Formats: sequence, structure tokens, C-alpha cells
Amino acid sequence: MESETPAKRQRSAKDVPYKLVYWPGIPGRGEHIRLALEEAGADYSDTEGGVDEVLASIQDSGDEFNPPVLAPPVLKHGELTISQTPNILLYLGPRLGLVPDANQNPDGIYRVNSLALTALDGLSNEPHDCHHPIATGLYYEDQKVESKRKSEDYVKNRLPKFLSYFERVLGSKSSGDGPWLYGGSLTYADLVLFHCVDGVKFMFPKAMAKLEQGGKHTKVFALHQAVGERPRIAAYLKSSRRQKYSDGIYRYYEALDIEP
Amino acid sequence: MESETPAKRQRSAKDVPYKLVYWPGIPGRGEHIRLALEEAGADYSDTEGGVDEVLASIQDSGDEFNPPVLAPPVLKHGELTISQTPNILLYLGPRLGLVPDANQNPDGIYRVNSLALTALDGLSNEPHDCHHPIATGLYYEDQKVESKRKSEDYVKNRLPKFLSYFERVLGSKSSGDGPWLYGGSLTYADLVLFHCVDGVKFMFPKAMAKLEQGGKHTKVFALHQAVGERPRIAAYLKSSRRQKYSDGIYRYYEALDIEP
Repeated sequence: MESETPAKRQRSAKDVPYKLVYWPGIPGRGEHIRLALEEAGADYSDTEGGVDEVLASIQDSGDEFNPPVLAPPVLKHGELTISQTPNILLYLGPRLGLVPDANQNPDGIYRVNSLALTALDGLSNEPHDCHHPIATGLYYEDQKVESKRKSEDYVKNRLPKFLSYFERVLGSKSSGDGPWLYGGSLTYADLVLFHCVDGVKFMFPKAMAKLEQGGKHTKVFALHQAVGERPRIAAYLKSSRRQKYSDGIYRYYEALDIEP
Repeated sequence: MESETPAKRQRSAKDVPYKLVYWPGIPGRGEHIRLALEEAGADYSDTEGGVDEVLASIQDSGDEFNPPVLAPPVLKHGELTISQTPNILLYLGPRLGLVPDANQNPDGIYRVNSLALTALDGLSNEPHDCHHPIATGLYYEDQKVESKRKSEDYVKNRLPKFLSYFERVLGSKSSGDGPWLYGGSLTYADLVLFHCVDGVKFMFPKAMAKLEQGGKHTKVFALHQAVGERPRIAAYLKSSRRQKYSDGIYRYYEALDIEP
């Protein structure tokens, strides 16, 4: 045991493939992790054991270094098991080259993390709550009236607010040249914003078409397009590894497809 | 400019006091940052210019290294300006000694970050949504019926789920000895859980009293007590720097004080 310190055990994980555990059948929150791994061409495996594998993962009581996790996505990497989408991205960012160079910009990772957290708050968590405003444990059908009311507010107020914020970021000095959010290079925050915009377009197509035509968020929509055209992302999106939207975070309900 | 690289400019920030910007008059999300700074005895200043200072901070368009921020809390430290509660804690953690030693446990910070994110999700964001389930831009009075319905679900299902998760973590191997969540030492995740439990006790006193009496979450309540007894935290809680709960995240409405 003395020769195998935690530091040594964990450093050796660098050469080990990544393992993602997430609910099968939906892109969901796991998609943010998948996009980072795909863009980097990383050696990874996705959930193969279906729902049973996910349940086993969250029922696991952890070990000396890893606490039990509450919910997927879960990333396993050697001895490491971690959860929480933004946390997994934070771990992967430097390893996959998806954050600024720490020698040039040692605090760049915090800027990127902040952008990713804000996108997840307003363009992933809030859309989810639009179809589940009362209880995640109830069906949409049991909270349709409240869903409609929340979605009306979301489409009118919250969605433009978040898109305008990212448009501001993309027009700010710190975004640098090119279509990316920060420092002139692709970071995982761009991948997160891509998937968020993509999902919101699926869920609220009328509102997003109107916002796109409005011309006030051209940089946000250009980023969505630029990420989708990255060679590895484009190949991934065409592959069977990219799961279709269904009953996950982003859902299409005609009643919620509101024209603002 | 050549001699003042970003790396140099940002490293020099280590000796500079911290500056927190948050809405005055409520503990709010800023409280998690305050508790970390207070526990560490850090040199920091809080918002002094009232709401105007907060508005100026979110209207600021950033600079070469800092993107604009969307919302407080904002931390300023030398040349650095960052937002997002869990992101600020992540930045402060190693600087304030509130994460595991990186030489002993290089990935410990990701375990702590995951616990903090989970506490914020289920015991801060969800309680907030209990009084604002439809729209953050509307008053509670405009969404009372929905608030009651969401709070009933929260108190019955979600709150016990999150407390049980943290009880599991506190009973797991990775928590180590003593009352703390991870590695046998106080981390910022403990401070986050402390304030979450404290706030939920304020908002849902009947439900929390019943859960405390139920005896299934003794370790969670013991952690709340242990953090409150830390000398610097105890002194802080008695000081005028600790703001009273009012119209922030944790609010007391009799209609929502549900007995489960």
C-alpha cells in the first residue's frame, strides 16, 4: 500500500480509457460529456449495460476515495468515479485540450466553467423544468397546465435573456477571434452551448426560428453551426452514437411550442 | 505588455484581498462564498455600494481575460472576475485550504465539487423553485397555487432524497473520520451543506423538524451543528455580516410550511 499512494494511483489513470455511464435512449445531460469526448477523439466507452448499469452505478457505495453518486452522468477513469455534468467537464477539459493553456491563462478554466454553468442553468435545466415545473417524479401529463405557463415565460423572457448574454460574451474582448466563446479557441463551453442551442431548437422550434430571424443573436447561431461543422462532431452527429431527442431534457410537445 | 503575461498578472493576485459582489439584504447564493471566506479568515470585502454596485458589475462588458457575467455572486480577485457560486468556490477551495491536499489526493477537488453541486441543486435551487416554480420574474403571490403544489412534492419526495444521499455520503468510506463529507477534513462542500440545511430549516421548519426527529439523517444534522460550532463560523453567525433570511433563496411562507 505504501508504494501505491492515491496520487500515484490516480496519475496512472491518464492512459486509461474513459467510461461514461448515463441513461440509455436519450442524449440527456450525458450528451455534454459525449460531445467533449467525441471532439477530442478520446478513447471512451458508453453505457453498455442499459438501465441496470446506471442503477448499479448510483447504488454503489463508493470506496476510500470516491463518494457514492446521486445521479448520472457518471464518469469512470481508472480509480476515479465522479458525477455532475459540469464537474465531469471540468475534469475532462484540461485532459482533452478543451480549456485554455494553463501556462498562458492559469485562470482560464474558471472563465470557461462559468460559461458552461450558465449555459446549463438557463438552456438545459430551465428547459427541463418547462415540462416538469412541479415535480420531476410526476409525468408531464400531470403538470401540463403549469408547463404551458412556465414555457410561455421561458420563451418570452428567459430564453432571450440567456441568448443575449451569450451574444454579449461572443462580442466581448475575451472571446477573441473566431466563433468561440473564450480566448479564440474551442473550449468545452462551446460544446455545451452547441448542445443547449440544439436542444432548445428541438423543443421550442417556433420561438427559436423567430429569434434566429430576429437577427439579435447571430453569433450564438453561428457558434451552433460552427461546432456542428467540426469534422469529428459532424461525423458523430451522423453516427448511431448520437441518440435522438425523446423523453429527456429536451422534449417536443406541441402545446409548449409557443410562438412568442 | 510582453513582460506582463496573463500568467504573471494572475499569479500576482494571490496576495490581493478578495472582493465579493452580491445583492445586499439577503444571504442568497453569495452566502456560500461568504462562509468559505469567513471560515478561512480571508481578507475580503463585501458589497458596499448596494444594488448599484451589483448592477454595475453585471453590466460591465469584461476585458481581455474576463467575459461579462450574467448574475451575482461575482468574485473579484486582482485581475480576475468570475461568477457562478460553484465556480467561485472551486477557485477559492485550494486558496483557502478547503479542498483535499492536491499532493495526497489530486482528484479530491472533483469529489468535493460534485458534492457541492449536488447540494446546490437539491437544497438551494429546488427550494428556490418551490416559491418560484413558474417564473423568476413574477412575484410569489402570482404563483402561489403552483408553489404549494411544488413544495408538497419537495417536502415529501425531494428533500428526503437529498438528505438521504448526504447521509449515505457521510456514512461512506470516503468521508473518513469526523463529521465531514469528504476525507476526514472540512471542505467547502461541508460549508455548502451547512448553509443549505440551515436555509431549508428556515423555509420548511415543520418538515425539517419531523425529519430530524425521524432519526434517519443524524449525520446530516450533526454536520450542520459541527459547522455552526467552528469558532470563526460561530463568530460570523453572531455578527452583523450574517444577513437575515428574507426574500432570497430561502423564504418562510406559512402556506408552504408543510407537514409531510
